[in-house]
Amino acid sequence: MANITKKVSWSSRADESGATAEGTRLLNGSEPRRLIQFSEGRSLFQIGRLSTVDLEEEMMSEEESLRGRPKEIPHNEKLLSLKYESLDYDNIENQLFLEEERRMGYMNFRCLEISRWVVCGLIGFLTGLIACVIDIVVEQLAGIKYQVVKGENHRFSAYLTVFILASLIVERNCWLIMFSSLGVCFPSPIAAGSGIPQIKCYLNGVKIPRVVRLKTLLVKVFGVICSVVGGLAVGKEGPMIHSGAVVAAGVSQGRSTSLKRDFNYIFEYFRRDTEKRDFVSAGAAAGVSAAFGAPIGGVLFSLEEGASFWNQMLTWRIFFASMISTFTLNFFLSIYHNKPGDLSNPGLINFGRFENNSQSVAYNLYEIPFFIAMGAIGGLLGALFNILNYWLTIFRIRYVHRPCLQVMEAMLVAAVTATVAFTMIYFSNDCQPLSSEHAEEYPLQLFCADGEYNSMATAFFNTPEKSVRSLFHNQPRTYNPLTLGLFTLTYFLLACWTYGLAVSAGVFIPSLLIGAAWGRLCGILLASSGSMWADPGKYALIGAAAQLGGIVRMTLSLTVIMVEATGNVTYGLPIMLVLMTAKIVGDYFVEGLYDIHIKLQSVPFLHWEAPGTSHWLTAREVMSSPVTCLNKIEKVGTIVDTLSNTSTNHNGFPVVVQVTGGDEPAKLCGLILRSQLIVLLKHKVFVELARSRLTQRKLQLKDFRDAYPRFPPIQSIHVSQDERECMMDLTEFMNPTPYTVPQETSLPRVFKLFRALGLRHLVVVDEENRDSKVVGLVTRKDLARYHLGKHGLEELQLAQT
Amino acid sequence: MANITKKVSWSSRADESGATAEGTRLLNGSEPRRLIQFSEGRSLFQIGRLSTVDLEEEMMSEEESLRGRPKEIPHNEKLLSLKYESLDYDNIENQLFLEEERRMGYMNFRCLEISRWVVCGLIGFLTGLIACVIDIVVEQLAGIKYQVVKGENHRFSAYLTVFILASLIVERNCWLIMFSSLGVCFPSPIAAGSGIPQIKCYLNGVKIPRVVRLKTLLVKVFGVICSVVGGLAVGKEGPMIHSGAVVAAGVSQGRSTSLKRDFNYIFEYFRRDTEKRDFVSAGAAAGVSAAFGAPIGGVLFSLEEGASFWNQMLTWRIFFASMISTFTLNFFLSIYHNKPGDLSNPGLINFGRFENNSQSVAYNLYEIPFFIAMGAIGGLLGALFNILNYWLTIFRIRYVHRPCLQVMEAMLVAAVTATVAFTMIYFSNDCQPLSSEHAEEYPLQLFCADGEYNSMATAFFNTPEKSVRSLFHNQPRTYNPLTLGLFTLTYFLLACWTYGLAVSAGVFIPSLLIGAAWGRLCGILLASSGSMWADPGKYALIGAAAQLGGIVRMTLSLTVIMVEATGNVTYGLPIMLVLMTAKIVGDYFVEGLYDIHIKLQSVPFLHWEAPGTSHWLTAREVMSSPVTCLNKIEKVGTIVDTLSNTSTNHNGFPVVVQVTGGDEPAKLCGLILRSQLIVLLKHKVFVELARSRLTQRKLQLKDFRDAYPRFPPIQSIHVSQDERECMMDLTEFMNPTPYTVPQETSLPRVFKLFRALGLRHLVVVDEENRDSKVVGLVTRKDLARYHLGKHGLEELQLAQT
Repeated sequence: MANITKKVSWSSRADESGATAEGTRLLNGSEPRRLIQFSEGRSLFQIGRLSTVDLEEEMMSEEESLRGRPKEIPHNEKLLSLKYESLDYDNIENQLFLEEERRMGYMNFRCLEISRWVVCGLIGFLTGLIACVIDIVVEQLAGIKYQVVKGENHRFSAYLTVFILASLIVERNCWLIMFSSLGVCFPSPIAAGSGIPQIKCYLNGVKIPRVVRLKTLLVKVFGVICSVVGGLAVGKEGPMIHSGAVVAAGVSQGRSTSLKRDFNYIFEYFRRDTEKRDFVSAGAAAGVSAAFGAPIGGVLFSLEEGASFWNQMLTWRIFFASMISTFTLNFFLSIYHNKPGDLSNPGLINFGRFENNSQSVAYNLYEIPFFIAMGAIGGLLGALFNILNYWLTIFRIRYVHRPCLQVMEAMLVAAVTATVAFTMIYFSNDCQPLSSEHAEEYPLQLFCADGEYNSMATAFFNTPEKSVRSLFHNQPRTYNPLTLGLFTLTYFLLACWTYGLAVSAGVFIPSLLIGAAWGRLCGILLASSGSMWADPGKYALIGAAAQLGGIVRMTLSLTVIMVEATGNVTYGLPIMLVLMTAKIVGDYFVEGLYDIHIKLQSVPFLHWEAPGTSHWLTAREVMSSPVTCLNKIEKVGTIVDTLSNTSTNHNGFPVVVQVTGGDEPAKLCGLILRSQLIVLLKHKVFVELARSRLTQRKLQLKDFRDAYPRFPPIQSIHVSQDERECMMDLTEFMNPTPYTVPQETSLPRVFKLFRALGLRHLVVVDEENRDSKVVGLVTRKDLARYHLGKHGLEELQLAQT
Repeated sequence: MANITKKVSWSSRADESGATAEGTRLLNGSEPRRLIQFSEGRSLFQIGRLSTVDLEEEMMSEEESLRGRPKEIPHNEKLLSLKYESLDYDNIENQLFLEEERRMGYMNFRCLEISRWVVCGLIGFLTGLIACVIDIVVEQLAGIKYQVVKGENHRFSAYLTVFILASLIVERNCWLIMFSSLGVCFPSPIAAGSGIPQIKCYLNGVKIPRVVRLKTLLVKVFGVICSVVGGLAVGKEGPMIHSGAVVAAGVSQGRSTSLKRDFNYIFEYFRRDTEKRDFVSAGAAAGVSAAFGAPIGGVLFSLEEGASFWNQMLTWRIFFASMISTFTLNFFLSIYHNKPGDLSNPGLINFGRFENNSQSVAYNLYEIPFFIAMGAIGGLLGALFNILNYWLTIFRIRYVHRPCLQVMEAMLVAAVTATVAFTMIYFSNDCQPLSSEHAEEYPLQLFCADGEYNSMATAFFNTPEKSVRSLFHNQPRTYNPLTLGLFTLTYFLLACWTYGLAVSAGVFIPSLLIGAAWGRLCGILLASSGSMWADPGKYALIGAAAQLGGIVRMTLSLTVIMVEATGNVTYGLPIMLVLMTAKIVGDYFVEGLYDIHIKLQSVPFLHWEAPGTSHWLTAREVMSSPVTCLNKIEKVGTIVDTLSNTSTNHNGFPVVVQVTGGDEPAKLCGLILRSQLIVLLKHKVFVELARSRLTQRKLQLKDFRDAYPRFPPIQSIHVSQDERECMMDLTEFMNPTPYTVPQETSLPRVFKLFRALGLRHLVVVDEENRDSKVVGLVTRKDLARYHLGKHGLEELQLAQT
């Protein structure tokens, strides 16, 4: 038994890919879904007991797994993984901390504040620079690719040679994607995808392993360049958000594991979860800002995803980082484009200016119903996209979990994408006359007469950003409806297949492109039915918003991002209405894409509010109990045993003190974290009973900060038998004033306290008897477990996935 | 003695104007400032005792006041008034509430949510409509005024007649201002000024009497029209924010005291502080949105000033209200301008489009130092403005406290403004040739040759919005430097004198105008010194931002408002830098204008974080103690006596239960509010000891909601001697799970909990002994008392002002 639980615990510490391959197999064999629907009369006491996975079931699946490594990895999304730890946004106000704060004068606080600003400026600058590098490299490579295709086009004009050309491109794309995918599969699996779900989780307060490492950043940047140039249906915007977050974590901590460098002296103060999370918010905002030229949208993205408690100075700093990021990108791009000072390319994607001077572009009141209808279409298509992608992801988790398979899948997608594109181009006859407005684009003549270009080829072979822009702004007759319809269909399927592949890539731009295509189609159809006001470009914009909203279901920040990217506040209201409609319609069927992926990872994600109908539940039913408590002066042996107990694997321990002369239960006097105990054990802060208490080595906050954030596991710390008999005085190190709630507190109230303060542990005390006794501990997973399903309140299972 | 305290208590219930006239006189006679500077060694126990005003001193000043009503009303800004009550953002989760919530199904929550959206839409619509009415009426009246001046101009051209013209205008302006001021002084004193300080306080959680009444709104709208047309140096934007807030409070509560109407059945659920404050946030945002065409800026304004806890759905609703508001205004204005569908006038003020196509308007890197220097100038001038206005306000509080004096002062200012304007125009010779670009403005020919117009007169006689716009956009040679310099100087002094006058008026536009004038001057000077890149319009924009930032010291929302109003995200970074510089420089000298006025009102305003160096203080030193506790089943007489005790005038009472068979102190089991007790007493929810407990009348939540928000005073409730002997069972009505902290908790921690959850009362318990005993209560005033002054941490006095 001990052996089994040990194995479980190790898999829980392994990194994400390992856990998927190992941990899932071990435990989630045949967990039945337990759907609990609350009805009025039902006693709630029984529910608490369902909250942990029965050990027997664990053993069964363990036995199953011993029979041989199965090809299929089952997965159950009604689970919450215990492997994720929470960030601690609450300051640990122990004696050491208070002493330090009290020692600091007003000037020190000022200096700290200034250094926070400097760090935010640096974050913005570096993020902007990365965006700039990505943009320039992609553009250069795409230019080369275009020249080659164009060249081939001139050399061969017989239909037969098409296949040579096609196979050349397919081959080239495959190589690129292979590089991208190899990077992701081997050195840094966390760099796969857009990174937005991971950053959402981090900002929500969940510690995702390796998500903010420098190596992840490098793989991400390299991967995204290869993917975009390789012609996949992906964008380079999503990964920017992840990149910004990594930059922020790196700069603020002044230390890199990958580089093995430590600039200890500068930013030591920032080495705690609170500060780090604040900086990562700034980084994510800077990423959004660089990607879309939307500094305000960036700030709102960070707040929407991350803010526990709105802090004015913090928001202001985040905004500063965003601004610097946009500015840096803009400035370097203006130099690159040989127009220094022309700061009109604020982001990686630029929707172009929607001027409302011309009557046709401004919208009218009677168009609003059409917009809302398009929002509904966007919601439906988005839900379809998400459902297809959900099935695909389940399939991938089950069958495509080996790195070599993942690389092969990526190459297959690349080959199919290129082939489909060629087939489409080959069979479409949408040749349009070349005009002067294409001076900066890459019109492809493929299969068209001289002086004409193939509009399907333009849609497929440009970078997706350029295609979106041309769908928004080109003259009404540029695309014919059939081209748009076919393009929507194929690109929809390709984008859906591509998302979740083991390459770094975003889903923002493909969504916009799909939406712009069918939106433009709607506009053309409306215009052809006699509505002269229906400007196809405007409808393309609305369609793009609807499709993106239907897929990702972001609301506030997305509206602002779209408004900032179009540079026209007039479109705010229709975009908002469209996004709302898309969200409402889409939510009826399935959750947003990022939420689906978060759920599939079984992350204990906390939403903004407790489920509406959860007033039934009280802290008593929600909490984990019994709790392992430590005494204020505790035997070292007991501490080591508690920490080594892998069946519980707790991270926070209430510290209690025995009331003298009574058989009454011990009284709460503080809370101490596993990480703190580990540092104490490592530094041997013991008191031998024989000697005086003064021999206890004095620890500084610095010692804790130096160990942050990768505290060694308890197994790596050797404690001799003699030392086990020593005592450890926790008074100085514990947080003496942990937040507590009585056990009758309702779930929404507990939730609000937990969420507003970004807590990691909330102690539940029993006030019924004479003493305030610790009866339980509420952690993130206890709250994340309850969610509002189709059939009322549901409760997720907890598992060591 | 009883008589005296009674008098004090009554003055604390009186409305604001009454309190200023009565309460201040009674108590604040000769309070010495007590500056407490914390040093390391000092015992902190002594500090707690200083926190209440000595009764003896009160009696002394009472005696003084009996000698005769003094002409001078002394005022001490180192005081916190006890007359302001807090809003309760925390839900009172008593049994009634939980029962109701549990009774509500999923569909009810949905309906509630939908009705919240409908209310927000209504708020936005009505706010936009009000903005529209103000705009159209002001424009019409200004047009009439212009025609008259122009007519006079043609009739007389001798220099002598100038005085006739001048006196005519002076007279007309005086009448208008008298109307405006009369409205403010008599029916609704709270409608004076811009209303932004009051809304800031409300959103911060302080209940300002009468601030959200319908009457206030009517007076405000009428007053602002008169003030703007009357030619004062005021804007119509600030009052819009207040108007939006009033609309929100009215619509959401479905009830008006002024109209004596009650739409009870619709929005009953929204009758509590939490919901009302949320809606008022939306209203304020809608107001900003309508004023500046800045829906995102409006949302950020509300969040910056109000948000305790960031809630995504709430923010989204606020955004919706803002959008609707902008859209409504835009739509009706487009109809008014005979261009239906042209939605390009998003706000009351429109900075015009700053296009960055021309090289001269985009800024360069080397201009940034100039911008920062201008930010510093703005900070200095802003600080000067604030200091002058501070002295003026102190003077007004002391000597100009009678309504008739206030009206006379307002008329004097109007007369002086018009006279000064005429003198300036008379002595300036800045005649500029008329060109086609003035087609829509009102160029005045006064004293100029035919075909020319007087640019000083244009700056003075246009509405300030138009002047700002022409300073931003007119051709470089439109204004000569001397005109601008003189204009800046006079307008600065006039605006400073005007703010705080008993008229409804905003300071946003005057600040922008002053800044635009000296900013343009800087631009002209730079350009004349050979810098061809210095476009005066651009420098006018930067100057406007600097001046406004220096005066109001808003940061994030102001940047966004400016960016949205210019419609160009490129200027984001320089505007941000300028605002930051202005804030830093200005803060060195004095606080922002709104904060000064809030402080002068002695409002217990909570900032975002506890002062940096306050880790010294713990809940024990901060809390109010002793606390009046009630028993769970309490004698009615005791409750009446407790509520009638005007020397304490508490609003929240911890409910305790005696532990059976012990001499130990009673244990905390809940918290009940004065307002709840009043309702219970009013409905005679008593249990006679002789009968069974079942006779207690069953109260519904509805009874509490019907009484909200104007609960009668205890004096108005008659309780007979028999009834005094009855018991009252508080179990159902108290909040059984109030938040508590141990008394060792540090002030920043208490502050964070209080602020994040928007609490009104926080119970401090003593965990040292065996029992959790109530030892104190932390309320808003206990936290607001500490602030960081020039000499370290200072503590304000509390007084019944």
